[in-house]
Amino acid sequence: MTRINLDCTASTPILPQVREAIVAALDEGNPSSIHAAGRQAKQRLERARQQVAALINAAPEELHFTSCGTEANNWALKGLLAGNKRKGNHLILSAIEHPSVSLAARRLGLEGAEVTTLPVDREGFVRPADLKAALTPETVLVSIMLANGEVGTVEPIQELVAVAHEHEALFHTDAIAAAGHVPVDVKALGVDALSLAANQFYGPPGAAALFVREGLRILPLLEGGGQEGGNRSGTEALPAIVAMGVAAEIATRELPERAKRLTAVRDRLRTALTAQLEGIRINGSWASRLPHNLHVCLDGVSSESLVLGLDAEGVAAGLGSACNSKSMRPSHVLKAMGLTDEEAKGALVLTIAEGTTPDDVDRAVEIIERVAKRLRSVTALTSRA
Amino acid sequence: MTRINLDCTASTPILPQVREAIVAALDEGNPSSIHAAGRQAKQRLERARQQVAALINAAPEELHFTSCGTEANNWALKGLLAGNKRKGNHLILSAIEHPSVSLAARRLGLEGAEVTTLPVDREGFVRPADLKAALTPETVLVSIMLANGEVGTVEPIQELVAVAHEHEALFHTDAIAAAGHVPVDVKALGVDALSLAANQFYGPPGAAALFVREGLRILPLLEGGGQEGGNRSGTEALPAIVAMGVAAEIATRELPERAKRLTAVRDRLRTALTAQLEGIRINGSWASRLPHNLHVCLDGVSSESLVLGLDAEGVAAGLGSACNSKSMRPSHVLKAMGLTDEEAKGALVLTIAEGTTPDDVDRAVEIIERVAKRLRSVTALTSRA
Repeated sequence: MTRINLDCTASTPILPQVREAIVAALDEGNPSSIHAAGRQAKQRLERARQQVAALINAAPEELHFTSCGTEANNWALKGLLAGNKRKGNHLILSAIEHPSVSLAARRLGLEGAEVTTLPVDREGFVRPADLKAALTPETVLVSIMLANGEVGTVEPIQELVAVAHEHEALFHTDAIAAAGHVPVDVKALGVDALSLAANQFYGPPGAAALFVREGLRILPLLEGGGQEGGNRSGTEALPAIVAMGVAAEIATRELPERAKRLTAVRDRLRTALTAQLEGIRINGSWASRLPHNLHVCLDGVSSESLVLGLDAEGVAAGLGSACNSKSMRPSHVLKAMGLTDEEAKGALVLTIAEGTTPDDVDRAVEIIERVAKRLRSVTALTSRA
Repeated sequence: MTRINLDCTASTPILPQVREAIVAALDEGNPSSIHAAGRQAKQRLERARQQVAALINAAPEELHFTSCGTEANNWALKGLLAGNKRKGNHLILSAIEHPSVSLAARRLGLEGAEVTTLPVDREGFVRPADLKAALTPETVLVSIMLANGEVGTVEPIQELVAVAHEHEALFHTDAIAAAGHVPVDVKALGVDALSLAANQFYGPPGAAALFVREGLRILPLLEGGGQEGGNRSGTEALPAIVAMGVAAEIATRELPERAKRLTAVRDRLRTALTAQLEGIRINGSWASRLPHNLHVCLDGVSSESLVLGLDAEGVAAGLGSACNSKSMRPSHVLKAMGLTDEEAKGALVLTIAEGTTPDDVDRAVEIIERVAKRLRSVTALTSRA
């Protein structure tokens, strides 16, 4: 029996065309050399930049490649704050940001920045009124994610940007969970900076990017040979970057159909799970949601035993926020949404991808039902003893 | 006629076994997931860590993967200075460091650190007496490269480390140009931190590492999901990292033979060039030198016209420091070694790799001779006019 992968939160599978692009790029030269092989490599690099820029409606010059989404997020916060000190030293973020945003903010706080963390409502939405109340003349930057990869909620970024810009604060959005899954248009959103990562839209790990609106001042995090216009030095990971370009081009072309396909499969998963399991709750907004994400809490079981039990039966599922998977504390996202520790205990992140079939979903639901039933009976026995 | 690549300074070609490892790793899971695919990916990651650690005689726990050598160098300087502020805020480096060290140091200087740059002698050596004189009780860190990839000189690191440690300063060495080419043993050298990059020893771009001696305090540069023991967050670029492991294992096994092979080919290049060309000077130490490097200056021609002329005839050669290849100023390394602008003008970095044959060398020498002769006659005509 082939395994069923419902854990595409941290990384999506690599598409065949993307894989071919990596292999083809392995023999390219160094884009910083001036001779023939170097010039060809440079062309490949710039082609990828155009492809990724097109996915988010940016100008290629506004796009800087990084090694991963974490680097893009760290750079956005640290680089924009350091580059715009004249305005002040105040940073605002939301309580459900990825650790690559919240821990970068914590570091900035330790170094003297004032950091304000905005709450979210029960569905995971940041309220524009809360942002408005938090803004001060010293606010340099607001960083609120476009979509939360764990609970699936897509934030009202356009509205939040308008509020930030009224107070002349810059706006960065972590679009790592969103790009390639929902339309992302930097011009329509109005954002000043935006992070995205290839391994979240069927590209490889090792390539990501930070969009920085033209004319904006950002200090580099990595200094050296002057690659990426001096904004991000380091030999370019050309195979991964070229593959990110291909993945972006496919995403740009297929996004509407992809979203429709995945939504249908995801909705089937939801319907079957809620019909067949008792004590199940859906988390996150349903009206404004990533098409490939389902987040549930199962009463009377723990996330960890669920994920391990499902794994033993051939189903990969996600445990809270993927990057914190080793830590058994309830997810900070669920806590911020007001779930109690008890409510958050049986949280399961189920993310599907291109290739997940209705049959996969039906088999997975059966297995989830069986595993949950077994775990619940064990829990019942233990608590009786 | 196949092209001859004598520009392996910034990147070496990828070995067939390394390429296979990348392709095989493309379908691995996320090493941070706790289910089966994640655990297998984690094993692959840890195997690569052992392989790279073995190349430099470090413990696997002391090795942290980064995305590129530039990141490793930036992290070493910024992270060690920030992590050891109690001792002071003084940093010492040499005048011939790669920009990823010297520009990171400049940034630290702008942020309040005291930075001392040590001179080098005519062969590119840092003198231990100069280091001794520069050390103060506030010196936190000394960063001197193990070998200079441009002029080939291998520095007396062991001696320099002893001097630094007498003054209780930490010692970082940029071994990016050296690892895989000359023996690198962190215990024998005594260094506290060391950078190396896969794409300099027949691995791919996108994977590098920083060795940090156990027990040392270093602040992370990238904060987030807690990968690499919390020292370097970000989804691991597993295909590139696994490939770096394979390249390291091959380097560990083949280093003595590889060095012998490359030295023979490089020496043939030197002998033929000096025999057949007039007005040629060899730069860098000959006694303590990278086996695959030759650095020459040709009188009466410019580096750029040489590199472009050779490129047109099918020979890729390096122009000053590879990462600064767009800039036409004489290399900072040659300036530090005391060469005048006029002497440095016709500088050519010739680096060979596994696969460069004696026949390649003979053909290249013929072409270099022809191109140099043509350029010199043009220069003579122009200056007469």
